[in-house]
Order: sequence, then C-alpha cells, then structure tokens
Amino acid sequence: MKTQTLLSPANAEELFFTKKTTVVIDVLRATTTIVTALNNGAKEIIPVSSIEFAMKVSGNTFSGHTLLGGERNTKKIEGFALGNSPFEYSPEIVKGKSIILFTTNGSKAIVKAKYSSQLLMCSFLNVASLAKKVADSSELVILCSGNNGLFSYEDAICAGNLIDELFKLNIKIELSDACRTCHLLFNESKDDLAEAIAKTEHGIKLIENGFEPDIIYSAQSNIVDIIPFYEKGIIQILK
Amino acid sequence: MKTQTLLSPANAEELFFTKKTTVVIDVLRATTTIVTALNNGAKEIIPVSSIEFAMKVSGNTFSGHTLLGGERNTKKIEGFALGNSPFEYSPEIVKGKSIILFTTNGSKAIVKAKYSSQLLMCSFLNVASLAKKVADSSELVILCSGNNGLFSYEDAICAGNLIDELFKLNIKIELSDACRTCHLLFNESKDDLAEAIAKTEHGIKLIENGFEPDIIYSAQSNIVDIIPFYEKGIIQILK
Repeated sequence: MKTQTLLSPANAEELFFTKKTTVVIDVLRATTTIVTALNNGAKEIIPVSSIEFAMKVSGNTFSGHTLLGGERNTKKIEGFALGNSPFEYSPEIVKGKSIILFTTNGSKAIVKAKYSSQLLMCSFLNVASLAKKVADSSELVILCSGNNGLFSYEDAICAGNLIDELFKLNIKIELSDACRTCHLLFNESKDDLAEAIAKTEHGIKLIENGFEPDIIYSAQSNIVDIIPFYEKGIIQILK
Repeated sequence: MKTQTLLSPANAEELFFTKKTTVVIDVLRATTTIVTALNNGAKEIIPVSSIEFAMKVSGNTFSGHTLLGGERNTKKIEGFALGNSPFEYSPEIVKGKSIILFTTNGSKAIVKAKYSSQLLMCSFLNVASLAKKVADSSELVILCSGNNGLFSYEDAICAGNLIDELFKLNIKIELSDACRTCHLLFNESKDDLAEAIAKTEHGIKLIENGFEPDIIYSAQSNIVDIIPFYEKGIIQILK
C-alpha cells in the first residue's frame, strides 16, 4: 500500500485526493469530537468550512433536529449550541440529532478532501478499527488537520499510531518521508500520549483555556470501534 | 527568540514573512548549490520561480556574464548551461558569474519568502555560521523547501541541526511543534547524515538518477562559513 501523510491541508489541492482513501485526523479536537458524537447516537455530522455556511445550512435544511457546533480558536462561537469539546456531545444532547460542525482546522480539512474515493475520520479513540478498515486500500492518504495551515504535533503522533497499527496487521506499506516522521514521533510519545499532547502548541493553549480534561479524553487509545465516514456532505457511522 | 519551522512553503502566504528573519533550506540541492557557487566565486545568484522568467532575465539584464542553472525533477533543463548539482558549480565555471537559478523547490521557496526582513540560505555546509548570524533575531522562521509542496525529511533534519546549533549558543528559544519535530529528527540522524539523507524520498530519487555523490557532498557539516543572503532579487555573500 502506498501511504502518504499530509502534515497540513495546505500541502495539497482538492483534486490531489481523487481516487484515494483519505483518513482525516484532528486530535484536538474535531475528529475526537466527531467520533464521540456519532458513538453517542448523533444521527449525522455536517462539516462546513465557514461559519456563514454553518448558519445558512442550519437555517434551511435541517431545522428542528439540528445543533450548531464548533469553535474558533478553541472557543465556542456566539449563537452556536455547542463548542468543540467532546464532553459537550453527550448522549442526552446529541441522540438523533444532525450536527453542523465548524472548527478552525478539522472541518476544513474534511471539506478539502471531499473528492477522496473514501473519506474516513480518525482519532486515538478509534485508530485500531480505522487501520483494519483501510488495510486493503491501494493508496492511502493520512491528512493531518494541522494548526491554521501549520504542522501540529498531536495529529502527527496519531498519524504515526495509525501507521503503527497498519504494521501490526503485517501490511506491506511504502512510507513517505512524512509517514516515517510521524511513526518516529509516535514511538517517542506512545508511553504517555496525554503527556505528549499536553506539551504541544495546541495542547498548551487548550489547557490555558480550561480544557485539560479534553486532552486526557482525546489521548485514550481505542475506546471506540466506530468509523465515521463522509459522503455527499454528511458524516455518518460506516456500517 | 520565537522560532518557527515551516515544513513546506505551502504552509504560509508571502506576507507571513514580513518583519521576520527567514532561513531557507533545500539540502537536495538548491541551498547546498547556492552556498557552493558563492563560495567558489560566483558574483551572485538570481533565484527565479519559473523557467520562463529564467529565460527572460537571462536574455535581458545579465547577458555576457550569466549562466542559466537549475533543474526540473532532478534533471537539467534543456537550454540551461548548468543543472542543480553542486559539482557543476566549480570555481573555473562560476567565478565572477551571475547565475540565474530555477529549481523545483528551493528557488520558489526563496522567492516566496522575499518580504522577510532578512533572508538567508542554509545547508549542512554552513549551518553553524548561519546559527551564529541569526542568534540575535527576535523572530526566526526556518523555511524548509520541501518536495513539491510536501514534507521533505532532509530539509527537516537540517532545520533540526540549525536549532541544535542555536542551543549550543545558549540562546533561549521558544520552539514550535515543527521545530521540536525537526530537532528530534536531527538527533535520530546526526551520527550518519549521508545515510539518513540517502534514505529520504528525494535521496532515493537522486541516487536512481546517478547523483549519489551529491548526497555525500550535501551531508558535510560546516565545511564552509559563508552565508548567502537575498536582497532585492539577488543572492550574494553576506559581508
């Protein structure tokens, strides 16, 4: 399997993803939150790449059973029902609901990769299930959502974890330079993922804003076995 | 000193570099070749971001004492006097000459960072001198030229080497996630830089195309103490 990791969505254009299986990672916190919300019974997530579009979609198509969620620079957006903390997406809040999600990095990364033949969402919470699912892909792209166009350490560690899980399945993988780097970072961090994530730029910012529990939550390995997948604008659980 | 590393020029827009000291790295091979050419007596290098512009500049301003150099996907461009191998830029060829340089990644990265307050070129050949020069910057950006918009391992190792040299000078540095990653990669690779570079995607391609000596040459630490700097379209030795 030919495997590439993009360390930021800025590294490729939309058409790059055509005919590829893409796995989007945004550990802090979009893909962690998407996995959590769907696992807690949300009907679907609609990722959007602008706040204006979130407002518009919310008003039109899904009214009644819709929640607006997301953040800008770690904070909840005015007028939105939910922020981007996975703890806000509890079963009693999200069950049966459609959630329109805008986040600084993750939802934009997902929308950018929309032409992928298969587009899946990964976090530490579901990385082992994800690896099994993509094991038979011919060409795999791991897309780290990064941090405003820049590299983000925690997404790279998670990409390395996914690669490590693929190794465990004895799959023959051709690794790009970026894949090798992520795998090295994972090996350096795997003994204490929460500690490693807390030291990242985004981790430090979240702690400053009172979200340390989100980091500890996001660092949990394989507590969930669902796989969110995106098709025609909507993220649901892959059956 | 606030220090950031961009793992590819795709990670930022031109205006990002305003008021910053930027160090451009393209180990294979643009910045290695620029350092070599200037050290071997070239008068100046004019980096260009398109082949068409290289042809135009060559025909107009600098005719007579001008050499066209560069490559596209490791190979010399038709009609150009020189490729992108540092061995082609020997004293007998380049002394006193203006060299118009187009390369797949490096010259484009330099042009992208043109609004930097100070724009310098780094390779393993001159990394220690470079560190001393930038030690008093308030905001440093290390710009890895990457590989067609993607991450390149050898540039990241060299960025890590520069950071390591800054540590040796006892400078207090704030490191971004990308800086920490590069420093880790350097520590993993420093015992045999040539071996590490040979294993990279670009290294493998160069070896396939017969350029293994370029890798061994490019991996030499601190054999040169000049610093190329860019100002108003021209790269010269910093006095």
